[in-house]
Amino acid sequence: MPKRVDHQERRKLIADALMRVAAERGLEAVSLRHVAAEAGVSSGMVQHYFRTKDEMMTFALSVVRERGEARVTRAVAALGEDPSPRTLLRTMLAELLPLDEARRADGRVALAFLAYTAVRPTVAAGLHRETAELLAFIAGQIRAAQAAGAAETRVDPDRAAVALLAVMEGLGVYLLGGHYPAETALGALDAQLDLLLGPAPRGRAVPPRRPSKP
Amino acid sequence: MPKRVDHQERRKLIADALMRVAAERGLEAVSLRHVAAEAGVSSGMVQHYFRTKDEMMTFALSVVRERGEARVTRAVAALGEDPSPRTLLRTMLAELLPLDEARRADGRVALAFLAYTAVRPTVAAGLHRETAELLAFIAGQIRAAQAAGAAETRVDPDRAAVALLAVMEGLGVYLLGGHYPAETALGALDAQLDLLLGPAPRGRAVPPRRPSKP
Repeated sequence: MPKRVDHQERRKLIADALMRVAAERGLEAVSLRHVAAEAGVSSGMVQHYFRTKDEMMTFALSVVRERGEARVTRAVAALGEDPSPRTLLRTMLAELLPLDEARRADGRVALAFLAYTAVRPTVAAGLHRETAELLAFIAGQIRAAQAAGAAETRVDPDRAAVALLAVMEGLGVYLLGGHYPAETALGALDAQLDLLLGPAPRGRAVPPRRPSKP
Repeated sequence: MPKRVDHQERRKLIADALMRVAAERGLEAVSLRHVAAEAGVSSGMVQHYFRTKDEMMTFALSVVRERGEARVTRAVAALGEDPSPRTLLRTMLAELLPLDEARRADGRVALAFLAYTAVRPTVAAGLHRETAELLAFIAGQIRAAQAAGAAETRVDPDRAAVALLAVMEGLGVYLLGGHYPAETALGALDAQLDLLLGPAPRGRAVPPRRPSKP
């Protein structure tokens, strides 16, 4: 009996190859031919699953995003029940930083994709909803901390959420460029949370991450 | 008498062509051939001035950086003598955001370069000194504000500087992706400065920028 081809699986195989090419050699090396060679399939096969480079890039980024979400979900689950907004936000944002090789590889793909979409507004539009949802979630956590008396109330939660997400994104960009080590980025993230949500509560310290050197 | 060729001028002409290609069509469109066509010169001429793509990219980014510096210098000079650290930092960081078409074009080149260097550590290393100098300057301004009693003293100025520069970079990335309008980015930057340096002083308000729609 012929084996049924799992199309989603094959798309994933090709997207993984695309990501290895992008992470190791940069976005400009991402071509139909290179990706096909890396995946060990024909160029025709790649074209069967992805009609355009936009489609291939968008799918690759969605894989990167799903991995990031899975990492965040795992890390947040490990916090136990009912973590404070500060602990939750710290865990979530630190998990999205390119602090180890796996996350650096994903981060390079995400950065390549950002550069790619900066000249293709229609491709970028697909990401806007996700960003808006993430910002709403962060603003909700800031609002909860303010209501609990733990946070600065003179700052508008929506504006503070935009700034906090931008800190994470900017730290990621500087980490990928090797401008400073992981410790510097985490120190800045903590300083930001100190400013916004007050110092980390004693006796319930956030467990320090042990990042690998970039 | 034959006209003497101005080599710096010709490099600049080629780099400008590279930047137009990168800004309009993305980094992966940047090739010797495309850049030569855009500049109206031969591929051999481009190779005469830039032996490698790394050299061409590095020069293009230095042009973008010089333009940014010139914008910041002009804007800071317009503040008059002895602006407050808050006013100075606000002016400087807002000037570096991609809020109008000229700065968006430069921002796209910078983002493309970041993605390019993320897989080429030796090219990225050339930027590290500039980032360190910028961080030292920002930390110095935060320190001055703290000494003048205008700023939160519970935050380490060096960590706060890393976070503040990351905010600017992250806002730039989200603006280039069209995730939110210029007003949202400026609102977040002001919220960040409110947190760090206290609310803007009354009677000496920072003149509002009038950003163009992205």
